[in-house]
Amino acid sequence: VRTYVTPSRTTEGHPRGPIIAIGGAEDRSVDGSVLGRFVELAGGTDAKIAVIPTASTLDDTGDRYIEVFKSLGARTMVLPYRERKDAARTDWLDTLERSSGVFMTGGNQLRLSTILGGTPVATSLRRLNAGGVAVAGTSAGAGFLSEHMIAYGDEGFLPRARMVDLMPGLGLTNKIIVDQHFRQRDRLGRMFTALSANPFAVGIGLDEDTAAVIGADDVIEVVGAGTMTVVDPSEVEYSSLAEASDGDPIGLVGIRLHFLLPGWRYDLNQRTATPVPN
Amino acid sequence: VRTYVTPSRTTEGHPRGPIIAIGGAEDRSVDGSVLGRFVELAGGTDAKIAVIPTASTLDDTGDRYIEVFKSLGARTMVLPYRERKDAARTDWLDTLERSSGVFMTGGNQLRLSTILGGTPVATSLRRLNAGGVAVAGTSAGAGFLSEHMIAYGDEGFLPRARMVDLMPGLGLTNKIIVDQHFRQRDRLGRMFTALSANPFAVGIGLDEDTAAVIGADDVIEVVGAGTMTVVDPSEVEYSSLAEASDGDPIGLVGIRLHFLLPGWRYDLNQRTATPVPN
Repeated sequence: VRTYVTPSRTTEGHPRGPIIAIGGAEDRSVDGSVLGRFVELAGGTDAKIAVIPTASTLDDTGDRYIEVFKSLGARTMVLPYRERKDAARTDWLDTLERSSGVFMTGGNQLRLSTILGGTPVATSLRRLNAGGVAVAGTSAGAGFLSEHMIAYGDEGFLPRARMVDLMPGLGLTNKIIVDQHFRQRDRLGRMFTALSANPFAVGIGLDEDTAAVIGADDVIEVVGAGTMTVVDPSEVEYSSLAEASDGDPIGLVGIRLHFLLPGWRYDLNQRTATPVPN
Repeated sequence: VRTYVTPSRTTEGHPRGPIIAIGGAEDRSVDGSVLGRFVELAGGTDAKIAVIPTASTLDDTGDRYIEVFKSLGARTMVLPYRERKDAARTDWLDTLERSSGVFMTGGNQLRLSTILGGTPVATSLRRLNAGGVAVAGTSAGAGFLSEHMIAYGDEGFLPRARMVDLMPGLGLTNKIIVDQHFRQRDRLGRMFTALSANPFAVGIGLDEDTAAVIGADDVIEVVGAGTMTVVDPSEVEYSSLAEASDGDPIGLVGIRLHFLLPGWRYDLNQRTATPVPN
């Protein structure tokens, strides 16, 4: 029986691989800094990349990524898991196990969790990352990476009871809750709400074409074009969530908030931000 | 020559009057908690209230307030300043000087500042408040109360260079920057931007039908139906504003943020929030 821990246990002396959460709508040209960084972290021209388009219901979702990754010199295969029984296919599992990088596309994060959750594919993804493999997701794929996944939510910056639903995600880390299309879809309030119940995690809000590259040392580098919003609830003194009825505004005291630009860093363990002035 | 200091000097042993900033669209029935609190602070059934409808271009803007204030037992007069020369009218100044409470309506805060700024009316308002008189403003009237007034701005939660313009306001205090219709008009980002240049003040974002009642001790009580958002930039470690071009996102590290509900308090000097659990 496998013990489920978050993240999967690493082997002594072997750091886990990078986790790359992308806010969606990233530049998909060969010059795009986000996809370029992912391929580099997966091994560059030695990379063997598995693309998992499961979040999407479109047949061609993986195609553009294959084209870009191949242009960047990486060997690339699509693993088109469409239903739970696909997750048992040993040929695809073999391909997955030999990859040096995994990329999950956008779509609906509930397709990723309902089709891959609890399957050998999920176990493999967790073990691969623990063993050093780079695992990336964009949009829905980014939301799925962490232990607690935002499944649904409403717009606006003000936290309100029941404005967000969390469901279990892949669990590569439980230190962050990730949200994407962050500025574009006005998602700050649902992040405050997601953190208002149990302020142990850090909220990472990613604008489009913007990635959080989370190293083995839990230091995040911002890559891409936009802002990474960090919501640190570690100093929250009070949350009124337990007293709030559906839709009520939530009172919160002591949120720390940072807006980080490309190149800037955030240390998830120290809870410190490092700006990189021009 | 009068020396211009913010706020106006108080007389030894005589605390200044309350400042009541209202987020607009307050309940204008006699049962409305915001207007009720203002009348109470102005003296209740002994109150003599001057209504200044200058922010509005409508002729009847003051009428509804007169009706409510009179229903609550206060004597009430309208001082319809419409152009700068009106500010010299000694009969109106006499009425103003005898008031125990002043109420500025909504409209456009630039009408208040362009018509009353630098006139004997502004001086009188500052002196009255320093002498103990309650001064309230709703919507545009609220924005005008402080030394630094938000004149224009854009929507969205992410701070961006040039998304807000500050102009000089009435100057009853310089400890806060006030914004109104805060949740309803999506104004969190312009508040971050307003504070990103010089993080000495505290941002007070007021939802509709919600008031900040600022006592002589600089403790704010939230009154009304909505949330008061407090943006405390006193721990900001870095702002990229000086390096940003027009429209660029601004990087900011170390904002403190609170969402306060009705009845809760915020101490502007200690920078502490006090929740009042149900």
